[in-house]
Amino acid sequence: MNTQPTSPCFSFDLTARDRRARAGIFHTPHGDIQTPVFAPVGTQATVKSLTPAQLAELHASLILSNTYHLYLRPGDELVAEMGGLHRFMNWDRPILTDSGGYQVFSLEDSRKIDDDGVTFKSHVDGSIHRFTPEKSIAIQENLGADIIMAFDECASPYDREYSIKAMQRTHAWAERCLQAKHRPEQALFGIIQGGIFPDLRQESARYIGSLGFPGHAIGGLSVGETKAEMHSMLELVDTLLPDDRPRYLMGVGTPEDLINGVLRGVDIFDCVLPTRLARHNAALTRQNRMNLVNAAYAHDPRPIDEQCACYTCQNFSRAYLRHLITAKEMLAATLLSIHNLYTLINLTQGLRQAILEHNLEQFVTDFLQQRQLKPQEGEPEA
Amino acid sequence: MNTQPTSPCFSFDLTARDRRARAGIFHTPHGDIQTPVFAPVGTQATVKSLTPAQLAELHASLILSNTYHLYLRPGDELVAEMGGLHRFMNWDRPILTDSGGYQVFSLEDSRKIDDDGVTFKSHVDGSIHRFTPEKSIAIQENLGADIIMAFDECASPYDREYSIKAMQRTHAWAERCLQAKHRPEQALFGIIQGGIFPDLRQESARYIGSLGFPGHAIGGLSVGETKAEMHSMLELVDTLLPDDRPRYLMGVGTPEDLINGVLRGVDIFDCVLPTRLARHNAALTRQNRMNLVNAAYAHDPRPIDEQCACYTCQNFSRAYLRHLITAKEMLAATLLSIHNLYTLINLTQGLRQAILEHNLEQFVTDFLQQRQLKPQEGEPEA
Repeated sequence: MNTQPTSPCFSFDLTARDRRARAGIFHTPHGDIQTPVFAPVGTQATVKSLTPAQLAELHASLILSNTYHLYLRPGDELVAEMGGLHRFMNWDRPILTDSGGYQVFSLEDSRKIDDDGVTFKSHVDGSIHRFTPEKSIAIQENLGADIIMAFDECASPYDREYSIKAMQRTHAWAERCLQAKHRPEQALFGIIQGGIFPDLRQESARYIGSLGFPGHAIGGLSVGETKAEMHSMLELVDTLLPDDRPRYLMGVGTPEDLINGVLRGVDIFDCVLPTRLARHNAALTRQNRMNLVNAAYAHDPRPIDEQCACYTCQNFSRAYLRHLITAKEMLAATLLSIHNLYTLINLTQGLRQAILEHNLEQFVTDFLQQRQLKPQEGEPEA
Repeated sequence: MNTQPTSPCFSFDLTARDRRARAGIFHTPHGDIQTPVFAPVGTQATVKSLTPAQLAELHASLILSNTYHLYLRPGDELVAEMGGLHRFMNWDRPILTDSGGYQVFSLEDSRKIDDDGVTFKSHVDGSIHRFTPEKSIAIQENLGADIIMAFDECASPYDREYSIKAMQRTHAWAERCLQAKHRPEQALFGIIQGGIFPDLRQESARYIGSLGFPGHAIGGLSVGETKAEMHSMLELVDTLLPDDRPRYLMGVGTPEDLINGVLRGVDIFDCVLPTRLARHNAALTRQNRMNLVNAAYAHDPRPIDEQCACYTCQNFSRAYLRHLITAKEMLAATLLSIHNLYTLINLTQGLRQAILEHNLEQFVTDFLQQRQLKPQEGEPEA
């Protein structure tokens, strides 16, 4: 439909819409990202238990890596010396790095925030470090991801006073990040905060949306608020953010979250859920979740999901997966990660196709029928 | 050269010789095994940290799995119910199972041997079990590997009295295994014992060699004797075993062991070494070994081995591998296992090619020159 180049190296084509949902293509120096897209998380420059070849077979087009972790180990300067993150981890498709802010603010007892930045203690060796907006950008420039994130502060979602303060800092820091950034082959995304407060979210979306970022992230959601609150915040910012730039809902999520995000105009998602569940022996299924350690599966010759086309479901039984788990074999995590990532990547591809075919409502109805869940209900834990 | 069908389902073609070394093809119901061959070990129905797809990419043609472990967990009957080991672990090429004897005899404090069999305590849950030759065959028939092994007793190599006793039991048990076996699509290999005693080894090779097995294994080596003693035992049995059947040197070994075995007429090898070293951060190299945890590699952009064509060496630096190890990422074991298995599989393929081209002496000289080691010297530990 419309092409809006946002930098010589990046542009976003909004290909189709179905109500508020969008199908697009984000062009990056390491290839196109067809949206909606789910990005597997490779915290320490590896999506846990998978080779890049296995990720490519899963049709992963974008992966996320964490600035905080890579800064501490092996160090962003080492990564730069090795040719950048793409070369270091052997991933030649797009990469996104977060700003490090979220991880640092999560270190509740060992960090101190001020208006200029945050001082914190390393979880690796207890050493003291300091992140500022400028430092976060410098690290992310060393890492060299295609998409980099502004340094922001994520408040506790129900604390209005803290949400105001965190939003103000986030806005000031967003401008400092824009100033600090200088590599044209990286797209810097601004981040919206504001907790669950409509007026703050609106203010933040308007402000961040006015700064000319080539993409926008919605932060501070999926951090303790209800699903209904998350959805209402998404609906608010959807109408305020520039339409011609991709929107990224950070750290989300479950299959239901992806669907509900897409229905509210979100283009990009990431979450540790699929690989973390895998390491806890759980598979995402069309019905919900399945914990393969369950003795009920000991003699079960069926795959996790008979309709799933992933490598794991095409080749291995529940009985075999349960055996691997019981025998503490590493292959269990690999095979479950393949299935879980396939499930979310395949879901976003299905959503994209449905948007292109103006068939989203039916797609969502079919999906929810299989789950026997209604759209906005919370998802029971496995 | 000569084809000697040993069962409707198996035959061994001895394609070429170079002095005592042999190049052959062992035809099995799950495909051909080109010898000399190195078999990766998949103790618990998985070669640790690798998918069958990754093993196939490594051109593994035969893998070994352990009867003792599978009997205890998940149970051979469950494996049979799931369609056998090939289907269970999704490996459609040849599989070899050991008899369970070696593992049971290694449980020194929790097993009791008599002339009929051995009673032992499970390492999983302490329960009491009994293996006899008939039981071992019944379990291996449930598992359904292409090559199965006679139930034997492996003595301490320098204990002559025990070596005599163990050899006599091994011979009696070999006949009981032949009697007990009834699946034609499995080839039962006899096992030679006799410690480091030339007269016992000769007696065992003659006796086991006379029973009509379609293949022969040399047991009780690489269990504490010197390399020179192992080589001299191999030379003895080489001249006594039927020439037209494959010979399998159990639980061996290092690159030097493979070369020294091939030079003495061995066709098949297996060893946990490559995958176990990988889980201890060590890589097999042309020079010897390299422990990637070493700080010297922190900034090293080179692959493990610049001349190696494996997936790991084609795509990842020493610095990245060291980072994965330091960050305790599972991918380290996967990438090192790929490299180490490739090294041994590639070595046996090189040996085979050299035999076919009557160029073995040069191949071995070149190999040893790179290592700056002489053929019969022991290999320093990493």
